[in-house]
Amino acid sequence: MMLKAPLPPGSTIGVLGGGQLGRMLAVAASRLGLKTHIYSDEANPPASDVAAATAIGRYDDDRALAAFADAVGVVTCEFENIPAKTLEIAGRSAPVFPPPKSFAVAQDRLVEKDFVSELGIPVAPYAAIDDLDSPRQALSDMGGPAILKTRRFGYDGKGQVFVHTESEAESAWETIGGVPSVLEGVVRFEREVSVIAVRGQDGEAQFYDVVENVHQSGILATSRAPARISDSTVFEARRIAGAIVEALQHVGVLCVEMFEREGEAPGLIVNEIAPRVHNSGHWTIDACQVSQFENHVRAICGWPLGTTNRHSDAVMTNLIGDDANQWPALAADPGATVHLYGKSEARPGRKMGHVTRLFPKS
Amino acid sequence: MMLKAPLPPGSTIGVLGGGQLGRMLAVAASRLGLKTHIYSDEANPPASDVAAATAIGRYDDDRALAAFADAVGVVTCEFENIPAKTLEIAGRSAPVFPPPKSFAVAQDRLVEKDFVSELGIPVAPYAAIDDLDSPRQALSDMGGPAILKTRRFGYDGKGQVFVHTESEAESAWETIGGVPSVLEGVVRFEREVSVIAVRGQDGEAQFYDVVENVHQSGILATSRAPARISDSTVFEARRIAGAIVEALQHVGVLCVEMFEREGEAPGLIVNEIAPRVHNSGHWTIDACQVSQFENHVRAICGWPLGTTNRHSDAVMTNLIGDDANQWPALAADPGATVHLYGKSEARPGRKMGHVTRLFPKS
Repeated sequence: MMLKAPLPPGSTIGVLGGGQLGRMLAVAASRLGLKTHIYSDEANPPASDVAAATAIGRYDDDRALAAFADAVGVVTCEFENIPAKTLEIAGRSAPVFPPPKSFAVAQDRLVEKDFVSELGIPVAPYAAIDDLDSPRQALSDMGGPAILKTRRFGYDGKGQVFVHTESEAESAWETIGGVPSVLEGVVRFEREVSVIAVRGQDGEAQFYDVVENVHQSGILATSRAPARISDSTVFEARRIAGAIVEALQHVGVLCVEMFEREGEAPGLIVNEIAPRVHNSGHWTIDACQVSQFENHVRAICGWPLGTTNRHSDAVMTNLIGDDANQWPALAADPGATVHLYGKSEARPGRKMGHVTRLFPKS
Repeated sequence: MMLKAPLPPGSTIGVLGGGQLGRMLAVAASRLGLKTHIYSDEANPPASDVAAATAIGRYDDDRALAAFADAVGVVTCEFENIPAKTLEIAGRSAPVFPPPKSFAVAQDRLVEKDFVSELGIPVAPYAAIDDLDSPRQALSDMGGPAILKTRRFGYDGKGQVFVHTESEAESAWETIGGVPSVLEGVVRFEREVSVIAVRGQDGEAQFYDVVENVHQSGILATSRAPARISDSTVFEARRIAGAIVEALQHVGVLCVEMFEREGEAPGLIVNEIAPRVHNSGHWTIDACQVSQFENHVRAICGWPLGTTNRHSDAVMTNLIGDDANQWPALAADPGATVHLYGKSEARPGRKMGHVTRLFPKS
């Protein structure tokens, strides 16, 4: 189902998922005079604090999903592991953006790597792992250390095991639960970067400045905008992101995470696609006139995209677990803009908030 | 009742009033991990779209107000004409900021002018008007044209009549309903400016850059940051705002509107005080790292104040009445950041949204 005309102010957007991304989407929607209706399978989701309505239900509850989709003008999703069936049910009552294909590709590492490779875009060496024998052979073929990753449901470094030797390969397969997986060759890179792209319903694509990311324990720690990379690498990163959103006929924000290699095989290789607003784009709230969240809302509602211009340099630092307990000191730091997600329990590894520091544009 | 410690993230702020100012306060609170509970005497207030809870009740409903105040950690107000009694009822159950004195002074033009004058700060010539005879005499004493303004409940140019002649003075008194009023001498000025000040519970005061305002038909049309005034005028404007928030022992944001006079009697005179977040501070959302709304929330919650630094020059234009129907064109303008308030009916003179244009800092 497509939108015939832009959703006017006063309309309601439906968001599947109620985490911090849904919360920041709801805030962005409110700036445009739009309401948000959250659908979450957990009670008291952070996004419901700023939503006009919240429905709590399972993602396979046909009736609850239909009622939710009937009540809104458009449906979107704030996490990538949404079941295809959920999108299908919602899609009977309301237009759904991004399109199901974007989720299908991003949800399965093998499908994702095949999809990106077929576009002629480099990825790390990879092999499908479907049984106990294949990791050993695949590792041998790759001729170096590798990471065994589950094809589905991995995030923030979960469902991943490093593999250095053939004997490790077998135990790794057991560690991740013997599920369909991908063995990925370890790529030496200088830098991790990402591009936040947004594509409208009319096919127009826009890109925020490329950012440089640092992960710790598999979780994003900081993003720096702009990345300290050459103009030609910026151009290449945007070209790659543009090819991906175009091939997917994506609508909304999409993040492409890449590695920059230097030395004998320089250039960018794609690591991962996230068909949604992304943690490495949170800096856009403070450093851009129109944030990734507002541009996602604009895209799914059929509005013209907003400018992706950046007025300041920015460094975003995540507040993970107990980090958020430092809020009194962070609030007192004149250089820090504090964002807290309203989560009651600061579990280890849980994203509780982030801090953005702005600097005059370099 | 004072706060003994800063209200921690996860707490709820109560806002009396549910208009666009409450809406933007709720959005700012959400960034700090705080929830908002709106109390409004009108159904479906714009702020409830982004509030965790909304209570609809009259401002003299003791029981409803007590239940509201019992449910929150602190109470604030988004409009200045809140009855003193309402603040008193709320104050039995929760700390209330700004303090009642700020409202008492700002609600009555005569009290306001006396208060400002007693601080040694210039105001326009004024006289209290309490009966049919006094306007004629006061106008004669002033020796020039004047404006008769009701002492209470005036806003956006309402409750004001221009008076040029003594015979007009009497009919003006009838036009505004024969209520206690103030006759204000018309002051020739070069420019209207305003200062958004914020004062914390520890007495620290901060100021946003002085802005230059243009009114049309008594309603703010545009604000430009920074104002095109001399450094010494900037200094004087901040000194005045600082003296006012200090004398009131104000907590939260407060706006001082002033006229800049040039020629034989140069300098600033105070026109009006608004003890709340203010339309002439909306540009801070887009041009500052911490907006007036966030700083108000920080102040009332006992948090350290955030920086008032401005990273960009800005021009804010209000969308009044039908102006908001231009949203498709405004959304397509890459220089404009659009803010819509979610009001269903675009009545003439009604503030429906605003647009901020950013420019590199001059």
